[in-house]
Amino acid sequence: MHPLFWLTPVGSVLCLLFAWYLSKTTKRFDEGTDIMREIAQAVRQGAKAYIKRQYFVVAVFFIIVFVLLLIISLLKMLPIFVPFAFISGGFFSALSGFIGMTQATNSSARTTNAARKSLNGALRVAFAAGGVMGFVVVGLSLLDLSAWFIVLNWVYRHLPEAQKIQNITATMICFGMGASAQALFARVGGGIFTKAADVGADLVGKVEAGIPEDDPRNPAVIADNVGDNVGDVAGMGADLYESYVGSIVATMALAVAAGLGIQGVVIPMVIATLGVLASIIGTFLVRTKEDATQASLLVALRRGVWGASILVAVVSGLIIYYLLPGHFGIYWAILAGLGAGVFIGYSTEFFTSDHYKPTRGIAQAAKTGPATVILEGLSVGMVSVVPPVLAVVVAVLAAYYLSGGASHPELGLFGVAISAVGMLSTLGITLATDAYGPVADNAGGNAEMAKLPAEVRKRTDALDSLGNTTAATGKGFAIGSAALTALALIAAYRDQILQFGYKLDLSLMNPAVMVGLFLGAMMPFAFCSQLIRAVGRTAGKVVMEVRRQFKSIKGLMKGKAKPDYARVVTICTVSAQKEMITPSLMAIIAPILVGVLLGPSAVVGLLAGALVSGFAVALKMANAGGAWDNAKKYIEKGALGGKGSAEHKAAVVGDTVGDPFKDTAGPSLNILIKLMSTSSITLAGFVLRMTLFK
Amino acid sequence: MHPLFWLTPVGSVLCLLFAWYLSKTTKRFDEGTDIMREIAQAVRQGAKAYIKRQYFVVAVFFIIVFVLLLIISLLKMLPIFVPFAFISGGFFSALSGFIGMTQATNSSARTTNAARKSLNGALRVAFAAGGVMGFVVVGLSLLDLSAWFIVLNWVYRHLPEAQKIQNITATMICFGMGASAQALFARVGGGIFTKAADVGADLVGKVEAGIPEDDPRNPAVIADNVGDNVGDVAGMGADLYESYVGSIVATMALAVAAGLGIQGVVIPMVIATLGVLASIIGTFLVRTKEDATQASLLVALRRGVWGASILVAVVSGLIIYYLLPGHFGIYWAILAGLGAGVFIGYSTEFFTSDHYKPTRGIAQAAKTGPATVILEGLSVGMVSVVPPVLAVVVAVLAAYYLSGGASHPELGLFGVAISAVGMLSTLGITLATDAYGPVADNAGGNAEMAKLPAEVRKRTDALDSLGNTTAATGKGFAIGSAALTALALIAAYRDQILQFGYKLDLSLMNPAVMVGLFLGAMMPFAFCSQLIRAVGRTAGKVVMEVRRQFKSIKGLMKGKAKPDYARVVTICTVSAQKEMITPSLMAIIAPILVGVLLGPSAVVGLLAGALVSGFAVALKMANAGGAWDNAKKYIEKGALGGKGSAEHKAAVVGDTVGDPFKDTAGPSLNILIKLMSTSSITLAGFVLRMTLFK
Repeated sequence: MHPLFWLTPVGSVLCLLFAWYLSKTTKRFDEGTDIMREIAQAVRQGAKAYIKRQYFVVAVFFIIVFVLLLIISLLKMLPIFVPFAFISGGFFSALSGFIGMTQATNSSARTTNAARKSLNGALRVAFAAGGVMGFVVVGLSLLDLSAWFIVLNWVYRHLPEAQKIQNITATMICFGMGASAQALFARVGGGIFTKAADVGADLVGKVEAGIPEDDPRNPAVIADNVGDNVGDVAGMGADLYESYVGSIVATMALAVAAGLGIQGVVIPMVIATLGVLASIIGTFLVRTKEDATQASLLVALRRGVWGASILVAVVSGLIIYYLLPGHFGIYWAILAGLGAGVFIGYSTEFFTSDHYKPTRGIAQAAKTGPATVILEGLSVGMVSVVPPVLAVVVAVLAAYYLSGGASHPELGLFGVAISAVGMLSTLGITLATDAYGPVADNAGGNAEMAKLPAEVRKRTDALDSLGNTTAATGKGFAIGSAALTALALIAAYRDQILQFGYKLDLSLMNPAVMVGLFLGAMMPFAFCSQLIRAVGRTAGKVVMEVRRQFKSIKGLMKGKAKPDYARVVTICTVSAQKEMITPSLMAIIAPILVGVLLGPSAVVGLLAGALVSGFAVALKMANAGGAWDNAKKYIEKGALGGKGSAEHKAAVVGDTVGDPFKDTAGPSLNILIKLMSTSSITLAGFVLRMTLFK
Repeated sequence: MHPLFWLTPVGSVLCLLFAWYLSKTTKRFDEGTDIMREIAQAVRQGAKAYIKRQYFVVAVFFIIVFVLLLIISLLKMLPIFVPFAFISGGFFSALSGFIGMTQATNSSARTTNAARKSLNGALRVAFAAGGVMGFVVVGLSLLDLSAWFIVLNWVYRHLPEAQKIQNITATMICFGMGASAQALFARVGGGIFTKAADVGADLVGKVEAGIPEDDPRNPAVIADNVGDNVGDVAGMGADLYESYVGSIVATMALAVAAGLGIQGVVIPMVIATLGVLASIIGTFLVRTKEDATQASLLVALRRGVWGASILVAVVSGLIIYYLLPGHFGIYWAILAGLGAGVFIGYSTEFFTSDHYKPTRGIAQAAKTGPATVILEGLSVGMVSVVPPVLAVVVAVLAAYYLSGGASHPELGLFGVAISAVGMLSTLGITLATDAYGPVADNAGGNAEMAKLPAEVRKRTDALDSLGNTTAATGKGFAIGSAALTALALIAAYRDQILQFGYKLDLSLMNPAVMVGLFLGAMMPFAFCSQLIRAVGRTAGKVVMEVRRQFKSIKGLMKGKAKPDYARVVTICTVSAQKEMITPSLMAIIAPILVGVLLGPSAVVGLLAGALVSGFAVALKMANAGGAWDNAKKYIEKGALGGKGSAEHKAAVVGDTVGDPFKDTAGPSLNILIKLMSTSSITLAGFVLRMTLFK
């Protein structure tokens, strides 16, 4: 084993210890008044209830797939470690989501309480809570990777070196499937839950009954707050866990084909570990003065992210220079990935922040009613696809050619893969700046429900709004890294097939490939259609229940009786669980079906088609949704007639349409793309035996 | 020259004579009362004014491109016939649009007048008018094709046979670019005009002033009627002219590479000619009894289309059997194309007709307001992508393998190309059933403005509604044929590059191809964003002008003064002309830029990416738009509270969003896909010289 590898297990433990330290920090803060505690407790219970049920369903699914994989393995159609790798990927993904969510629900009241004194204090609690999530995700990823690497090294110890590395990476890539399957469930289920609760709460509360957002009389208000935690925290964590692990294992697998040997295999793990250490240092740069404004808070967060990025950029150069002196081009690939990630983040911010023209244009369109708000928002969403695509294109070309792809294509593919690792290397801190947003959002809900003074809500709103900006950056990373990771996974799939001795014809003139592209490009549409409809159906159920409670619970509207919050949570939970099954299965079954009916070349076409179309659709949805949300907030801040005006009503329509766009369908597409690739890889051996198309 | 070729010029002349005969038939009907004449005259003038200006702009563009092509040709980087082929393609496309539109504007008042007596009479006028359009399009296509074929045969008479055919088809494929460039201008310009006028008229007329649709007091009402003619008639005609010609020349070009010789080259022309004759026979089957109902009218129209299709299916079998006895599989490819076209038509109808669940679901969603109408409509639009993609996938695979692609890939590609010819073979009659819709729509406007009795409007509404159904089928054909034609064009592009002795690496593992796919998949988003915004901007101008007229023209609202219709027409015209330039140039410049920067393999990636993503987006937009329109009409017919209810208002928002979806952006995408391919082909020689990527 390469000595530098040992950095990874050590780094992972350090990272988990740091997460534990952050968690301790938040515990030192107080949860505030009794009513604040009570509200936090209700949200916590709701989130736990949801997660319990979600993990039960997922566990059933995992056990079924595990058994199927085991049978296939025992029939010698897959390596015997595959089912275990699959389970471990899913387990750690679920664990990081669970810890992050628990921490988030434990921190919202504390953030509110800190906000009673100062903005800066509130930021510290919320950011620490986000940091727990960020560092747990990367820490557990590296731990899982190290453990498998050590175990497999031992298992294959008798094989010759080349063969050994080959077997190790081929097995490790399979736990990507477990991670992505669990991530898809988390994103889809959480996304349906959160948006159904949100849309349902708004439709009856704000629109019909005319009570403000987060009003405690609204029976859906707790569900809405629970949703932020299960969707935006647990879902996002599982998503990025998967991207992180996926990009690392895909790069390791491609290192073998690129002929880089054990050095190439450990490099992605080492770079990731460096990123983790840099992220930890970065968090210490996030400090502000006591009289911090919103702008100076953003500067503080940015300082942390930039500090970590620069650190990674410098140190990884040294590492590459030392480990792969003949291939220094790989360093430029890492930088290309880092750069593309930052660029996509800024592009997202440009299209979704109310400081810039696109979002303000949507607000202006509210003058002529909801239809023009929708059209303008869709138009913004569509054009927002352009800069990230150009960024990915430049990154891919730079990574490929600078790593030496012109003379050795396999080296070029390795370069593309490692650029994804570069982009995700600072995940610890970027995820921290992202995951703190929902904590702040919940803190605001807590302040509203506990009827705290307006200035508290104002402070949490400032944090929340800042969270929207950092969330935009986070979404940019999630989607950009998904694109690069998927490219790496597609290349790894092809390697896998070639290793089985099967010949591939990946030319666009092969009708199987072309047909695969058509089917792949169709997938995101079929998938999003399902998700959007699921949100609509579930929101409809919430609306009915809220109406029922308004009618049947006496004194509710006067604040003399309490609504039955738990019932709405249960409705969302049950419905989200039911609705998440079909779209998730679609992602796993489509590549198997295409593989069996049309062969592996068509599968590559399918994956490529889903990637390029899914990337565009995901960006469009995420950015249109973000822009609608902020256009509404812009009007609420007083522009164009402010709250309650006809313009505001028109903007609310845009926001409601945008909700499932940006928090359900858009982000789930990231995972769809990757899950299709990872399940193709995992099941490659099996599908090749079954294919009708020899 | 092959004797069967002479069928084509003869068929084209027959076809044009038949169009002339149909035109005469409509002239025998009377235009009705003075006011009806006057209205018809105003629409006619507006349409002529628009077309005059449009063709002026297009002519300037064509002259510039012609000169550029001429210079490049004189520098020996392109064959000398290319600039002339380019001009002729554009000229005939424009001519067919012009004739169709003139006929349509001449027939609306006549249809209204006939509707004063009976539904059947009105159908006969409107259908004959649509028939003129249909048969002019196919007649002029075949004429242009025959003329070039004869001329080039003479020019290259001294070359050996193989070389001669090669040169002929290589030149002929270039007039596809002229046809598609003019088609894009017609679709984009017409599409912006028609929807800006429509949306503008609705926003001020229906929403603000509360006057009914087509009310003569609305200054935008004539512009709205003009729009139907310039967008839905002239635009649709140019679009399908281009698909028709494009599919035929691409197939001819591929016949050479497939080694089918002169037989293979004439087959697409012969099949198309057969289709024309079958279509003429089909029109005689469109007859009903005097007491026809809407349902029996649909049966009558369907009888015509089915009759023609069956005729083609039978006779083309004989032709293939006679001409290419060793390759009877090609016949199955033709049938696959025909079948896919019919299937896509039915799928479109399912998703957009208020007889079925999807559209009714949208109407139901109106209960919870405009946001849910939008979400449900988008969801329907997205899932509606699935059946047509499956149809194209099956057709491509069937066409490829049944023509013998497994052993001879080039034969397979020829099979895919000829399946597009099969799909479009009955274009004469399908276009007739499609183009009659706008005539009926205008007839309704005429009835409203002339204040004719309600029963007249009811009859024209029945025709219009039938027109919506047939238009759905027509759009299915337009988009399905665009997909197959684009595939054929991509294959033809590749042949072209190979003939230049350039080596292509079209594998998905080539980063240039993958990057091309990303860029291609992005194109439809960038393009649609522009178009939707253009409609919004132009509609805004219409709104301002209408408001101004309402204020400044005294007695207008009381019906005592006439609005200044012409001014709104001018505003739409000027604005549409300005707005159509950028998106159209985008389609031509993108492949050149990609070719120069990244080489021809990336261009193939670009074209494939644009095809698969554009196909999905176009279907989504067209079907969502159609479904929203019909959901609104369904409510207007009395469902869910009927006209004026909150549900109706919510559905109107959906319809307004859908307008630019279905009549501007969606259909323009068909042409975007093809124009990118044809300009790549035409400029291949030039771009290869310029490319930085050798």
